[in-house]
Amino acid sequence: MANCIGKVFPNELFDFCKTVFEKTGVPKHDAEIVSEHLVRANLRGVDSHGVFVRLHHYVSAIKQGIINPRPNIKFVKDTSGACLIDGDNGLGPVVAMKATELAIKKARSNGVCVVGVKNTGHVGMLARYTLKAVEEKMIGFAATSSPPIVVPWGGAKPVFGTNPFSIGFPVDENFSIIVDMATSTVAAGKIAVYASKGEKIPPDWALDKNGKPTTDPKAFLDGGMLLPFGGYKGYSLCLSVEVLAGILVGAPFSHHIPRGWATQGGFVVEAVNIEHFRPYGEYRKDMLELIEIIKSAPLAEGFKEILLPGEPEHREYLKRLQDGIPVYEDVWENIKKVAEEYNVSPPKLY
Amino acid sequence: MANCIGKVFPNELFDFCKTVFEKTGVPKHDAEIVSEHLVRANLRGVDSHGVFVRLHHYVSAIKQGIINPRPNIKFVKDTSGACLIDGDNGLGPVVAMKATELAIKKARSNGVCVVGVKNTGHVGMLARYTLKAVEEKMIGFAATSSPPIVVPWGGAKPVFGTNPFSIGFPVDENFSIIVDMATSTVAAGKIAVYASKGEKIPPDWALDKNGKPTTDPKAFLDGGMLLPFGGYKGYSLCLSVEVLAGILVGAPFSHHIPRGWATQGGFVVEAVNIEHFRPYGEYRKDMLELIEIIKSAPLAEGFKEILLPGEPEHREYLKRLQDGIPVYEDVWENIKKVAEEYNVSPPKLY
Repeated sequence: MANCIGKVFPNELFDFCKTVFEKTGVPKHDAEIVSEHLVRANLRGVDSHGVFVRLHHYVSAIKQGIINPRPNIKFVKDTSGACLIDGDNGLGPVVAMKATELAIKKARSNGVCVVGVKNTGHVGMLARYTLKAVEEKMIGFAATSSPPIVVPWGGAKPVFGTNPFSIGFPVDENFSIIVDMATSTVAAGKIAVYASKGEKIPPDWALDKNGKPTTDPKAFLDGGMLLPFGGYKGYSLCLSVEVLAGILVGAPFSHHIPRGWATQGGFVVEAVNIEHFRPYGEYRKDMLELIEIIKSAPLAEGFKEILLPGEPEHREYLKRLQDGIPVYEDVWENIKKVAEEYNVSPPKLY
Repeated sequence: MANCIGKVFPNELFDFCKTVFEKTGVPKHDAEIVSEHLVRANLRGVDSHGVFVRLHHYVSAIKQGIINPRPNIKFVKDTSGACLIDGDNGLGPVVAMKATELAIKKARSNGVCVVGVKNTGHVGMLARYTLKAVEEKMIGFAATSSPPIVVPWGGAKPVFGTNPFSIGFPVDENFSIIVDMATSTVAAGKIAVYASKGEKIPPDWALDKNGKPTTDPKAFLDGGMLLPFGGYKGYSLCLSVEVLAGILVGAPFSHHIPRGWATQGGFVVEAVNIEHFRPYGEYRKDMLELIEIIKSAPLAEGFKEILLPGEPEHREYLKRLQDGIPVYEDVWENIKKVAEEYNVSPPKLY
């Protein structure tokens, strides 16, 4: 594990990202959307989708022509409840946020709207889209497909991506329930951390290259594959995301998805307008009661607290908003290189 | 385990159920719907939701006034994409099928439709509703909430039901992918089977009454509780179903849900019209390719075949359709009692 070499303030990190994106040819408004997305991921503690890990990949993909900095985002289908967007290979956070805003707008009058997206870059942290829906007092659902690394249950060849999905339930202005999970047991990056520490991984995480369950993280990294979470049930969900975010929307699926840090299969987002079912105040009252029932349950052996989905990330968000975002030595190199290449001062370390 | 004492033919079992329901005051059309539902569950091998386990509970609930045999099913909200039905405490399979048909009808023009249901009896096997959607070449989603028996992750008090959901993806006329799963590790009934055999249960299935993980099925049956499947990820899904099928639709939730074999919390069903996203033929071609990719993967250690979600149930369906439905000694008593009470000849045993 790398050393923490200081902290950056989120507004300074945002300004840095925004300037870099604008220098790559991304319009100001889009540069703001993608920069806010990356900084928000860091604030929530989801560093794997934050500035230090993704920025240099995103800008390098623009430079290589894989990502289009000025996409012509087209509405291929536009009915009241179901829409399809062609993202013209734009930056994922820009394309997917446009899809989310469309779903919310249509759900306001129609009650429900599903928007599919094809030809999009890496959409980042799915919670960003369900957070947007809950801000509008709607239930949000988002899912995305990615290159194969997860086996079907009983198989020994990667067929699915880690295929994450997110569900957001609004509660109040301060906190909402945000589910955001991969349908694999873990991300590959987490296993790399075990390998670097020389620790064993649990037996239900991965197979080696021969399809044999392994507790050796290096056996996974050497051509191994991930297992879906929760056995055949997680496999069903992994497969469902592959269809919803990929095949339904006409995006590439399984091994047709190009590999890369800035690419994605497809994306799907849904907004459900609570007011079309019952008054929001009644819904909210019941949600607060359910949360109270959950929180007041006695603890199981070995636990100190019962957390709601999204609560750890929200706590980290509040903490980092005040204290700043920690910076680690290894990923700081990525920032310095980008800063030098685009002649932008890196954010100040405190 | 009870002895198998013979088999019944599905059409004869259907006729028996239908006659019994009509004698309890259920109109002919509704009696046909609920009978077909129960027999279909037996055909798919889902005996826990079939005739022998549920019929006597359903008719007894009608007799006790818990279930209304002639409900006045009302459309509380009826917009194009979001609808709400008050089931007037009718038989669940009747109310939920009406909701499903409404979702499909609206999705035909609107692309997508979500229908919520409150005041409904036990809706039975969720796969029945997603099977209906896939027959219409639509993607179906259904979920239902039930009385508390599952703990929140880290808690030692039942807060959620086994909260199952189903997702159906059409493939072709012979077979579609049907996910149908509880969000608990297992059903309580399965642990009772372990207890009767004197076998231990896996350590991640249940807690004893003190909130301690147990491998003793009797410790679960003595005031214990179920764990969500797949740890905190399954907990997030269990909670999501509690909100979608309960709080969103204004149905009772958690400990407010009445206990019983014929009752339920709430129900939610969604239909997504594939044609609103892309031509069905293109979708189907990609689905067949994905299935080929899954099926042709090399096998992991210890597996003989890679199955698709719903494939075991579909195989059982084809087998039982031809060979008949096996009958076990213990549950046959339920049928004999109902036959006697309503003066209807029980189906013939072969």
